[in-house]
Amino acid sequence: MSYLSGLFSTVFERRFARAVSSGAEGRAINDLAHDLLGTQGEVSGSTVARLILDHYAHAEPNEKRAFFDFMLRDLEIDPVDVVETLKTYKQSPSKRSYQAYARASEPRRQELLRRLNQVPGGTQRLVSMRHDLLRMMQQDAALGPLDVDFQHLFASWFNRGFLVLRRINWSSPAAVLEKIIAYEAVHAIDSWDDLRRRLEPSDRRCFGFFHPAMPDEPLIFVEVALTQGIPNSVQTLLADGREPIEAQDADTAVFYSISNCQAGLAGISFGNSLIKQVAAELSRDLIALETFVTLSPIPGLTRWLDQNADPALMRASLEQQAAHYLLNAKREDRLPVDPVARFHLGNGAVVHVVHAQADVSDNGMRQSRGAMVNYLYDLPQITANHERFVTEKVVTASPAVRALGASVPSKS
Amino acid sequence: MSYLSGLFSTVFERRFARAVSSGAEGRAINDLAHDLLGTQGEVSGSTVARLILDHYAHAEPNEKRAFFDFMLRDLEIDPVDVVETLKTYKQSPSKRSYQAYARASEPRRQELLRRLNQVPGGTQRLVSMRHDLLRMMQQDAALGPLDVDFQHLFASWFNRGFLVLRRINWSSPAAVLEKIIAYEAVHAIDSWDDLRRRLEPSDRRCFGFFHPAMPDEPLIFVEVALTQGIPNSVQTLLADGREPIEAQDADTAVFYSISNCQAGLAGISFGNSLIKQVAAELSRDLIALETFVTLSPIPGLTRWLDQNADPALMRASLEQQAAHYLLNAKREDRLPVDPVARFHLGNGAVVHVVHAQADVSDNGMRQSRGAMVNYLYDLPQITANHERFVTEKVVTASPAVRALGASVPSKS
Amino acid sequence: MSYLSGLFSTVFERRFARAVSSGAEGRAINDLAHDLLGTQGEVSGSTVARLILDHYAHAEPNEKRAFFDFMLRDLEIDPVDVVETLKTYKQSPSKRSYQAYARASEPRRQELLRRLNQVPGGTQRLVSMRHDLLRMMQQDAALGPLDVDFQHLFASWFNRGFLVLRRINWSSPAAVLEKIIAYEAVHAIDSWDDLRRRLEPSDRRCFGFFHPAMPDEPLIFVEVALTQGIPNSVQTLLADGREPIEAQDADTAVFYSISNCQAGLAGISFGNSLIKQVAAELSRDLIALETFVTLSPIPGLTRWLDQNADPALMRASLEQQAAHYLLNAKREDRLPVDPVARFHLGNGAVVHVVHAQADVSDNGMRQSRGAMVNYLYDLPQITANHERFVTEKVVTASPAVRALGASVPSKS
Amino acid sequence: MSYLSGLFSTVFERRFARAVSSGAEGRAINDLAHDLLGTQGEVSGSTVARLILDHYAHAEPNEKRAFFDFMLRDLEIDPVDVVETLKTYKQSPSKRSYQAYARASEPRRQELLRRLNQVPGGTQRLVSMRHDLLRMMQQDAALGPLDVDFQHLFASWFNRGFLVLRRINWSSPAAVLEKIIAYEAVHAIDSWDDLRRRLEPSDRRCFGFFHPAMPDEPLIFVEVALTQGIPNSVQTLLADGREPIEAQDADTAVFYSISNCQAGLAGISFGNSLIKQVAAELSRDLIALETFVTLSPIPGLTRWLDQNADPALMRASLEQQAAHYLLNAKREDRLPVDPVARFHLGNGAVVHVVHAQADVSDNGMRQSRGAMVNYLYDLPQITANHERFVTEKVVTASPAVRALGASVPSKS
Repeated sequence: MSYLSGLFSTVFERRFARAVSSGAEGRAINDLAHDLLGTQGEVSGSTVARLILDHYAHAEPNEKRAFFDFMLRDLEIDPVDVVETLKTYKQSPSKRSYQAYARASEPRRQELLRRLNQVPGGTQRLVSMRHDLLRMMQQDAALGPLDVDFQHLFASWFNRGFLVLRRINWSSPAAVLEKIIAYEAVHAIDSWDDLRRRLEPSDRRCFGFFHPAMPDEPLIFVEVALTQGIPNSVQTLLADGREPIEAQDADTAVFYSISNCQAGLAGISFGNSLIKQVAAELSRDLIALETFVTLSPIPGLTRWLDQNADPALMRASLEQQAAHYLLNAKREDRLPVDPVARFHLGNGAVVHVVHAQADVSDNGMRQSRGAMVNYLYDLPQITANHERFVTEKVVTASPAVRALGASVPSKS
Repeated sequence: MSYLSGLFSTVFERRFARAVSSGAEGRAINDLAHDLLGTQGEVSGSTVARLILDHYAHAEPNEKRAFFDFMLRDLEIDPVDVVETLKTYKQSPSKRSYQAYARASEPRRQELLRRLNQVPGGTQRLVSMRHDLLRMMQQDAALGPLDVDFQHLFASWFNRGFLVLRRINWSSPAAVLEKIIAYEAVHAIDSWDDLRRRLEPSDRRCFGFFHPAMPDEPLIFVEVALTQGIPNSVQTLLADGREPIEAQDADTAVFYSISNCQAGLAGISFGNSLIKQVAAELSRDLIALETFVTLSPIPGLTRWLDQNADPALMRASLEQQAAHYLLNAKREDRLPVDPVARFHLGNGAVVHVVHAQADVSDNGMRQSRGAMVNYLYDLPQITANHERFVTEKVVTASPAVRALGASVPSKS
Repeated sequence: MSYLSGLFSTVFERRFARAVSSGAEGRAINDLAHDLLGTQGEVSGSTVARLILDHYAHAEPNEKRAFFDFMLRDLEIDPVDVVETLKTYKQSPSKRSYQAYARASEPRRQELLRRLNQVPGGTQRLVSMRHDLLRMMQQDAALGPLDVDFQHLFASWFNRGFLVLRRINWSSPAAVLEKIIAYEAVHAIDSWDDLRRRLEPSDRRCFGFFHPAMPDEPLIFVEVALTQGIPNSVQTLLADGREPIEAQDADTAVFYSISNCQAGLAGISFGNSLIKQVAAELSRDLIALETFVTLSPIPGLTRWLDQNADPALMRASLEQQAAHYLLNAKREDRLPVDPVARFHLGNGAVVHVVHAQADVSDNGMRQSRGAMVNYLYDLPQITANHERFVTEKVVTASPAVRALGASVPSKS
Repeated sequence: MSYLSGLFSTVFERRFARAVSSGAEGRAINDLAHDLLGTQGEVSGSTVARLILDHYAHAEPNEKRAFFDFMLRDLEIDPVDVVETLKTYKQSPSKRSYQAYARASEPRRQELLRRLNQVPGGTQRLVSMRHDLLRMMQQDAALGPLDVDFQHLFASWFNRGFLVLRRINWSSPAAVLEKIIAYEAVHAIDSWDDLRRRLEPSDRRCFGFFHPAMPDEPLIFVEVALTQGIPNSVQTLLADGREPIEAQDADTAVFYSISNCQAGLAGISFGNSLIKQVAAELSRDLIALETFVTLSPIPGLTRWLDQNADPALMRASLEQQAAHYLLNAKREDRLPVDPVARFHLGNGAVVHVVHAQADVSDNGMRQSRGAMVNYLYDLPQITANHERFVTEKVVTASPAVRALGASVPSKS
């Protein structure tokens, strides 16, 4: 009973856990999984689920791998069963025949994951489990189907309707703030003092999406600067010792960093919704706000310029190069090469202004020679922009950016 | 744009909603559903989802019926597609082939419901929608398969790991308390004063499960009396003017009423887990507590006695009759006739004591001639009891109840 | 140890209380008061304070009276001591000499009350104690000086900076809402359903001031209707079955009821500050709001008309009579006769419009023949209005009201 | 209107503030103080109070000094008035005559401070103001009487009944935690990581008292280690990399650091009450806890040994020296020389064990040659211990400590 004692906070729970798990603790994780799926799961479910998750947490990589294999192989659909129940259902459709099909067509590992989720803290541990899985999949593609099941469940559990938008500021729990430091992916945060400079001044905001079952874990967060006019340099924006303005005096909200936090939630998208909800939240309090833009990196610019060393392009200014790249550099599927561009254009934003000397950090110089771009979120146009981008692959841009881009003679 | 204006609380949201929904408002609900499932759903999803839910809320029964039919028929699986993707997957299993199967094997109406759920308040409206559906199904069994999809999604969304146990007392929001009055199913609450008598005294507790997306809606709740010794009458327990005891002095917690609140969540079970979590919660604060029992109705007793008018049984005392009934009255599947008995025995409780003159209300006299029963939750025994009940259909009872039951000569 | 057991919720506290109070329980309240003021108060203070408050709560009126007398007589200042310490201080001013004076000039009953306040729930019990005192003072003015001490302490404890403005709505705790029903002084609330009609519709608001040490006890609350235009009848405003408007569409906020809740806080004024804070709060969310008015009773009108039965006045319309009364009916100190007028004019509001047929309830007809008045809170003018009212006793009114008032020939 | 704009968060408040303060902003702080005390204070009070506090915040030391002088001199009591109102009151005691006396006997600066406190955040700014005052008093004792008034008001405002005990952990707001780092006075916290080691492990607790008007400012906090047995070294207790135990397994709670946070609240005592409330709080959750001790520094030991270099004492062990010092080293008033001893003995604790090699940090070696002491809080004895300590100056100690102390031959 060694580690069990730590899992239950009350005498009551310990007594119950002891009653349930006498004998269980010695069992293999796969056997426990069968227990959890069986009848006993109804009554002693959460204790068994806890044991499984704890086994897993202490497992070596090869044991984890074995557990994944077990789920893939032993808790797989039975194709004969799928086809037969389907046939019956189509012949005589009814609640009962459809239920039989529904049960057969879904592998039992989904039910296992749902039952593991009953435990307090279970959701987070399943997100970590998928993180392990994604890493192993890089070596071993055979695990792919298991990931489909995880992703299916997570899309349901992390439905936007369940997420909570919370402001993150210097009064947020340290347990949340340390995640902000850890997960900031765009412009690294060095220290708690650096973090405070992003959160405490009157002209800074930060918002994140949270899931109620993981209250200390932001899923994604966005950092916002409130400014007068559109900024052209992230270093100026974040300068130590700068003089903050009053929030009420700002006419522009600048989304200068958006970071996903949970590797185990890869592929579950929240970003689009986050920007719009934050824009709504800011408008509520700050009535002078009129413009919502990003100040975004152009991560693919340098590489693309190196690969497309056209003499005319080489002679152009960095702004011209950046505009040309954002408007014309496409993948095979005719979508932009630049991943950040794909994200914001896909959300319905437009390419608004490009700037040289805008990110002169090592990373900024390396990836884009210091260039950055503002994407504009123009509310009444968002849906139409999005529609044209998705269906016709049209990159919408301001006249100025279009002119800049057009001023570079095309290769052909 | 008439009613849209009421749906959005900020100017910002209204502006955006107007941009999205110009033209959309006139469209039929089914067309909107296709929009929501299409590409546009990514960007303007929640506005379209809101429109659909609002259409639905204002719809006549026949329109609702038509919407259900639409989901059943137009958003149904394609059996050919299921079989083909399944075949491909089994021939060359991969993430991609499994994804194709997973997508084909699940009807698109599930995705529609997930997208409707994005809207604030959406979860509750979908629970109401299923309530409508369940009512229509009483007339029309063809709707059954649609209910399977609802139930499947709800089981995932209302996973026990997402539920929050909250104490309900006189400091709870009125919006919650009015639900307690409305939903109390066992011993009706007459008025706010009556409610207060159940919540405010030092020896009363009430707990409910809540879902974070429906914070004012209890899903299920249990009322508890703290006593010294096991009570034998619900009227005494609830007597107006009785003298409460100090909670710290109680040795027994009596679960005297458990009520489900959401008709739209029928079939999603929380009760078993509730009793155990409440018992744990109570033990944490009240260290003198040793006994956890119910004071439960025997709803099927009168009817069964009427149907089994054996002379020997007729001559027995009410306690004997009740004990006999609880131990021996079985359905075809060999489980007890009595639904409350099935619930508690299924949870691992045992039949502990039976009482005559225990519920002398009209309802109590009618359903059980005034008899009630205590089921005992004896922690260390719960799993074993449950196991025997489920697998061997054994009704475990105290020696006293067994003796009482045995004192009635069997019919044969 | 009988009732002590109920006062302490943990075993720990009980053990400590038992150690402290062995022997103490039998002592008289006055002796306990001396204990509390003595050295022991430092360590066992809150237990002794609890005993005193509990003694008091169970005391008969004559015992309470005796306790008040004790405080007045035994815990009184010593005039010789005051004069001597004062002389020493003025001769050689220093921290020490001033401290001696400060201690001598304040009666020890103030320190007793501060120490009684240490107990959880103590503040509320002291507010009740003053309520008792105020009632006894009606018979016996000799208790007056004790009330001065209560009032002095309460003014400090209930400093506006410590009060919290909280919205009260249908999600507020029932324990708070029942106070709203009980304390509504202007337009009585019949039932929980009636209360809900005041709180739940989109165009209703209610706010109260709370003190952190009495979280379930509103000190004062105001009910607000959001309207388009200025209303002229409270029955129309509160009509059952009326169609609410969207809050965002309101241009006017109507303060139609302001009620003090704590008789024990008589003379501690919060009303002025409440109206302004609520106006600020409403403006934050509802940007279309432009006008802040009351819809107020004219409680002294009927009586005054009866006492001033001037024929010209008798022939005037009710609106003329009301305008005349509000502008001209003065007390000896030249302030308006009407208490509600004094309150709002003192806050810097102006008499804006008078209405006949505005409150046709029994009470409304009785006190003012159905007339009501809107006082207008015009932000930029509030200070100047207040200043003129307080220093020059000028009643500011709109041109319309002035014209109405002037149309009645003056008695002289 | 430059800085005013920053003080008000809503358009509404700004409009109002502008109306009130047109003209006011140019006025001197003393004139504003007279405004605030005058009639205008009723309506525009909080705006004027804000201006004063803001003036003060931007003031140079000599201006602050001038403001203190103004309060001392211009808002002083009038001794003639005190004596006369006192005489009248004693001749004809009544509410009115006592009120006149009460008003005269208290300097108007107290009312000024109460009105300044109306502003949001005012309490904290007044605490800072007193901090300034205390610093200036070191140079200039003439300011002493002003401090008496501050202390009088703070004792009332920070009455124990208004304080809230809150657990401080890794989920507390960063704005609170940075104060813990800043204010820890006993064993310095180096960094956020160091802080986390004090807060996050299962066997650590931290609690603080907070005032509702200063929610991010702990007033005092105590750090607790949960252990098995009584610890004899603070370095072992705080060792990096140590293995935490389960809280439920602890039998001892060790208060190893108590820090006051607000220099401006010097002389307002909370410590005694904090320890008892924390002990109660811990007992509630951790039923195995039986012993409550401190692990305390002996700050005066080295200096005292240096000053009392008795040969016999010099030859004794450090434990003997420490025991001897704690039992026998007295001030003129016969209380112990050691300030930490005075604090805990005054709270009713006893000297329980002394340890050498218990704090081998530079500071620990310097102040006490590494010695530390456990004071034991033995609940049933606390009041009696306190009583004997305060009245008879008896230092209660365990037999072991008494024996150790006695083994050192006394000087005489």
